[in-house]
Amino acid sequence: MPANLMTKSQMKKLAEQASGIGQPGGDARVKEITNRLLFRLMQVIDECDVSMEEFWAGVGFIAQTAKNNEFGLLVPGVALEHFLDLRLDEADKKAGIKGGTLRTIEGPLYVAGAPLSKGEARMDDGTDPGEPFVIEGRVQGEDGNIIAGAIVDIWHANSKGGYSFIDGEQAPYNLRRRIETDEKGGYLARSIVPNGYGCPPESCTRMAMNALGRHAERPAHVHFFISAPGYRKLTTQFNFTGDKYLYSDFAFGTREELVVTLERVTDSAAIRNAGFNRPFAKATFDVTLTKERAGAPKTEVAREHVMAA
Amino acid sequence: MPANLMTKSQMKKLAEQASGIGQPGGDARVKEITNRLLFRLMQVIDECDVSMEEFWAGVGFIAQTAKNNEFGLLVPGVALEHFLDLRLDEADKKAGIKGGTLRTIEGPLYVAGAPLSKGEARMDDGTDPGEPFVIEGRVQGEDGNIIAGAIVDIWHANSKGGYSFIDGEQAPYNLRRRIETDEKGGYLARSIVPNGYGCPPESCTRMAMNALGRHAERPAHVHFFISAPGYRKLTTQFNFTGDKYLYSDFAFGTREELVVTLERVTDSAAIRNAGFNRPFAKATFDVTLTKERAGAPKTEVAREHVMAA
Repeated sequence: MPANLMTKSQMKKLAEQASGIGQPGGDARVKEITNRLLFRLMQVIDECDVSMEEFWAGVGFIAQTAKNNEFGLLVPGVALEHFLDLRLDEADKKAGIKGGTLRTIEGPLYVAGAPLSKGEARMDDGTDPGEPFVIEGRVQGEDGNIIAGAIVDIWHANSKGGYSFIDGEQAPYNLRRRIETDEKGGYLARSIVPNGYGCPPESCTRMAMNALGRHAERPAHVHFFISAPGYRKLTTQFNFTGDKYLYSDFAFGTREELVVTLERVTDSAAIRNAGFNRPFAKATFDVTLTKERAGAPKTEVAREHVMAA
Repeated sequence: MPANLMTKSQMKKLAEQASGIGQPGGDARVKEITNRLLFRLMQVIDECDVSMEEFWAGVGFIAQTAKNNEFGLLVPGVALEHFLDLRLDEADKKAGIKGGTLRTIEGPLYVAGAPLSKGEARMDDGTDPGEPFVIEGRVQGEDGNIIAGAIVDIWHANSKGGYSFIDGEQAPYNLRRRIETDEKGGYLARSIVPNGYGCPPESCTRMAMNALGRHAERPAHVHFFISAPGYRKLTTQFNFTGDKYLYSDFAFGTREELVVTLERVTDSAAIRNAGFNRPFAKATFDVTLTKERAGAPKTEVAREHVMAA
């Protein structure tokens, strides 16, 4: 069939009708967004000459993705979660907010309620043979002021790229900790170096990436939520220099400013000092939060999380 | 946050990257459609200033719709199934095909494999107290030629608007029959007059219609697939004059050419003749099929159907 069979005004009219535009009742915001979405969808169908079979195959793919609870993976995989970050960055700029640590995607695998400790925490349970890892840093405000009592909520994969609560192989909350910064704004986590994450072999998301000629891998990364009273919540991650997938993260989470070079510590006194018995890797990740202020775009996002068992 | 924070070229570039455009591998068609879809989605997010919370709420709604197996309802409810029909009508026109009975949406509730009989069939099992109903008609080609041996696959709701296999209240295949046209191209079905269909009270689709200020009801209708060797399969329905929802079908299925006036038959000889013992309604629905020909848009659509138990 040919493309471009419909006129713009036919599509506009049908989208408006389907969205209840011009009719009383309903939710004005839902109507507006639905109207735009439908019009744009009709445009895509018409400009690509999407056949009925292609349409229903697409619907079937979306349905299966939903049934697998995979939207949290597919959405970053097609860059939409990153796109929302880019918009928030622009909104920050327009609101005159700058100087904070860059945000990046949350991803789908946060679990609320990780153990909370003050100043430092051991994140792994000792069963992972991976490389020992120290993450340390300082939380400060945009004026350089120390923020004591900030909550640094950290989660990352194990040395096989799996997450507790997800891979079924780890103890609950393994590699998930909340650390309250000390009086100098500092936090320190002892853990093991995570591997990158890859979409499950049978997942719809991996299937989609295959169809797009893309891979379905993330470089190794450590996730953070950082919050403190009076400051805007920050959702971010850091990656490691030299990672194979650093600049091709399938989830579009890598940002140059968030790439950390791991220091390899081999000095035996330093090893003992850090509480390890073999060489370890060390990452320094300092974070700057921006102050809550009138007109600041919202950064606390209510969305569904994986439930803690 | 303000709308229109991103440039068209930023969105185009990100959509292309996410769709693997310019990279080898993958499926060119999937890449093209994904690219357009993502670009248009980003446009909607940006032009409507869709917040992260709104975005994830939307994703959650789509996920629940999928988990309820409701895409078959939501898609016609937002006019997309009708839109696909309109495109096919236009493609027919461009291909010089005309004179056939108009198509309209299939809807989600077809079940394959209904009992097949020759010339006529009784569709109801005698337990429905609704008004007795005769549907009769003739299947012909676009040149007026009789088509004997066409398969007329009919399905409709009961007098409460419910479908067998769906409402859990009816015998399998109740009100679902396939009739092979006789040597005069005729078919005749005895049944009961269906009521309109309404989306289930707790369905995502009804919730969506509420949010759009729309109702979630269909006028009474009778579904048809009609196929015959050498002819293009026709998917259609007819409605009844005077139905409360005739011109506000939530599923956009009504087409003026497919509205039938029911004849009320009260003559006792005619009643006896039709095999009933009380007055009945009669609909005449003649159908014209168009010939299969080179370049004709495809009308046989492979899509998932409700499974027969």
